[in-house]
Amino acid sequence: MRQAKLRPSPRTGNVPGPTGPSCAVPLAHQDRIVLGHGSGGRLTHDLIRQVFLSAFDNPALARGDDAACLDLPDGGRLAVTTDGHIVSPLFFPGGDIGRLAVCGSVNDLCVMGAVPQWLTASFILEEGLERETLERIVDSMRAAAEEAGVSIVAGDTKVAERGSADGVFIHTTGVGRIPAGREVGGARARPGDAVLLSGAVGDHGMAVLAARGGLDFAIDAVSDVAPLNGLVEAMFTACADLHVLRDPTRGGVATTLNEIARQSAVSILLDEESIPVHPAVAAACELLGFDPLYIANEGKLVAMVPPESAPDVLDAMRAHPLGRDACRIGVVQQGPAGRVGLRTRLGTTRVVDMLSGEMLPRIC
Amino acid sequence: MRQAKLRPSPRTGNVPGPTGPSCAVPLAHQDRIVLGHGSGGRLTHDLIRQVFLSAFDNPALARGDDAACLDLPDGGRLAVTTDGHIVSPLFFPGGDIGRLAVCGSVNDLCVMGAVPQWLTASFILEEGLERETLERIVDSMRAAAEEAGVSIVAGDTKVAERGSADGVFIHTTGVGRIPAGREVGGARARPGDAVLLSGAVGDHGMAVLAARGGLDFAIDAVSDVAPLNGLVEAMFTACADLHVLRDPTRGGVATTLNEIARQSAVSILLDEESIPVHPAVAAACELLGFDPLYIANEGKLVAMVPPESAPDVLDAMRAHPLGRDACRIGVVQQGPAGRVGLRTRLGTTRVVDMLSGEMLPRIC
Repeated sequence: MRQAKLRPSPRTGNVPGPTGPSCAVPLAHQDRIVLGHGSGGRLTHDLIRQVFLSAFDNPALARGDDAACLDLPDGGRLAVTTDGHIVSPLFFPGGDIGRLAVCGSVNDLCVMGAVPQWLTASFILEEGLERETLERIVDSMRAAAEEAGVSIVAGDTKVAERGSADGVFIHTTGVGRIPAGREVGGARARPGDAVLLSGAVGDHGMAVLAARGGLDFAIDAVSDVAPLNGLVEAMFTACADLHVLRDPTRGGVATTLNEIARQSAVSILLDEESIPVHPAVAAACELLGFDPLYIANEGKLVAMVPPESAPDVLDAMRAHPLGRDACRIGVVQQGPAGRVGLRTRLGTTRVVDMLSGEMLPRIC
Repeated sequence: MRQAKLRPSPRTGNVPGPTGPSCAVPLAHQDRIVLGHGSGGRLTHDLIRQVFLSAFDNPALARGDDAACLDLPDGGRLAVTTDGHIVSPLFFPGGDIGRLAVCGSVNDLCVMGAVPQWLTASFILEEGLERETLERIVDSMRAAAEEAGVSIVAGDTKVAERGSADGVFIHTTGVGRIPAGREVGGARARPGDAVLLSGAVGDHGMAVLAARGGLDFAIDAVSDVAPLNGLVEAMFTACADLHVLRDPTRGGVATTLNEIARQSAVSILLDEESIPVHPAVAAACELLGFDPLYIANEGKLVAMVPPESAPDVLDAMRAHPLGRDACRIGVVQQGPAGRVGLRTRLGTTRVVDMLSGEMLPRIC
């Protein structure tokens, strides 16, 4: 059982609260790295802003989207994205680290409107790793790349001594072309936009948690890890002017919507009742005190689209196997900038903050 | 002291010989990953061929160059390369993991004739890492990127629990444009070509070894880690038809030349006397039983150029700060394909094989 939630670390002050994303001790200026710096939530954002953005200052990075958009001399645009994968365990219901690595980069490209074309894959292997394990992972990457229609064109392999890396780490970088006329990005949400979600939330995080074992009860969750580029193309066919697309991975839907609300300087109001959660995931979250809105997904996306296009986009999503359960979950509103609210089943409205601290480390 | 050479691992059969690249037990079909699979030598090549190439089958990868060359719809070409960096220790005389990560990707691009433009950087941090250490590394990356004229446009950060990763691992992916007309690659060496080397060999590997401590004597070596794109541009100005460029990193000059001899189906004859080695590196190699031709470099390149252009290219190299000690070290010959020979100081000729097994793990 390796989740931080059940393993408070008083030495670092990282004490995730039992029922949500709160954090007992301010963590922004810690002098050591804590697990929460990799959560995808507030600590990650602070680290990026304070350490990386200030050093690697450039417009593509500063935009804070899932992929950098780069201008080519011919007027074309490239999207480039990178991701490290350290999921533990390596295999889980519905997927494995290889499928995750390929889909992660494919999805970060397509939510920028890019057509994913090329991936690189860089491996850190721990001395003693079974070769058959590596072969299974590589075969899974091959299958996922085929499914997504991308080629793995460059790679690297390093081996670290036993005990100095955990089995296999995989970094993938994705490169794709952005077709002319597509302008999608986290800063383009407009008041009035419909907020769409492609399906049930929390499947990936709970599947990985279940695979770790050590719980007193079974979780019947299967990871949703899948390449979303086909779904995205179907959505663009229904509406050329999609405003925002993003895949809610680490930090879940709640953190992703907070990021977008900040980037676009809008507020977002969600309707709790409309957000699909599979019963097994809902039950496990209930037992563990997790909020499914903060659990990672690896085959879902949220979209902000002009209200008049929402019905067509929803129809297109529902016609695609990965969007069958798509639904409208909320609306973009004028200010207060950066706030995400949730209208609960009881009719009250509560603020949905960004994840701070860490709920489930090593989830992707 | 973590080098494999002084730590035979009988459980894996990986017993590097004491005086060179030989390996007592055949390793090609081992069922577990050993350190030698990350050496950059024969075991790495076997793993790439048997596991990765067979799964990710495509022409860009199969070419086996330092970067993939990809065609854009406008007729332009992109070079893409990726590298993981796990060097231990993180800081060493002349550099650190951050400078290494930036220069590694810049160099893999420019030896394909590309002009490096964009990098991505993906970090795995170990829980408990000092934030100041991370900031020093990031600042070094910033400085190296500035020196090379590239932008770091996308990134990712993951945190692994204490004990499941070693401090900091950094993966960089580089993207650059290949100017029209440049055709450089490992398969383009031609009989008669001059083999040029930009300076002394073995500095990086011995500097890292020295920084590990645990030796009974001091090694006064400083890593040569540097971005080579300026030097490469100077060489292209002197001769538009450079045949092969490559940076001899893991596995050293010996392994790099073996790769090229195989790709081009030629043989290469080196002149031992002409290969520069700094006295401190030569002395340490002598004491440790290492051959400097197998020690990693991170700021050197080898080039195969038409014999009539060699004097101009050498002049251009020597006029650049990173090529001051450039020299002609050998000649490309017709067959036997894939063989590298060395004319020794005694006037005899011996075969210089590819590194097999592992001399110094975690060198980059």
